[in-house]
Amino acid sequence: MSKVEVYVTYKKSILDPQGQAIKAATQKLGYSEIQDIRVGKYFEIEVDDEPQTAVKKVEEIAEKLLANPNMETYKVEVVQ
Amino acid sequence: MSKVEVYVTYKKSILDPQGQAIKAATQKLGYSEIQDIRVGKYFEIEVDDEPQTAVKKVEEIAEKLLANPNMETYKVEVVQ
Repeated sequence: MSKVEVYVTYKKSILDPQGQAIKAATQKLGYSEIQDIRVGKYFEIEVDDEPQTAVKKVEEIAEKLLANPNMETYKVEVVQ
Repeated sequence: MSKVEVYVTYKKSILDPQGQAIKAATQKLGYSEIQDIRVGKYFEIEVDDEPQTAVKKVEEIAEKLLANPNMETYKVEVVQ
């Protein structure tokens, strides 16, 4: 059994209103050090396969289901 | 400048309907190896501080703003 993580975020060129709203909230709480916040989706996927094959399968799934290629980029990482 | 990542997921005891829906979609696409999918939120935060202090500040922000302590858990990691 393998555990794979996927991180999906907006491309840098895409405005992230949710991130901007959270940043404004942190400023109100007094955290002036916060320069930027970008919000994305995070997936923990358990795959009944060994890691190399699991990663290939999850990359296919990320491409087809988890990320919108026009606006988002994704990263896939094996955890175990 | 430090870059800190936060991962927020539902506690194990909490049902994750979104994860279940995506799992069902992967099964339809023929990925029968997928055993479980859990969906969460992912934050990339840039902090104008050195890493140790940045992590402490982001943990406070995660506790106050990013995660609902009743239903969610969070992990904080320094990237650079």
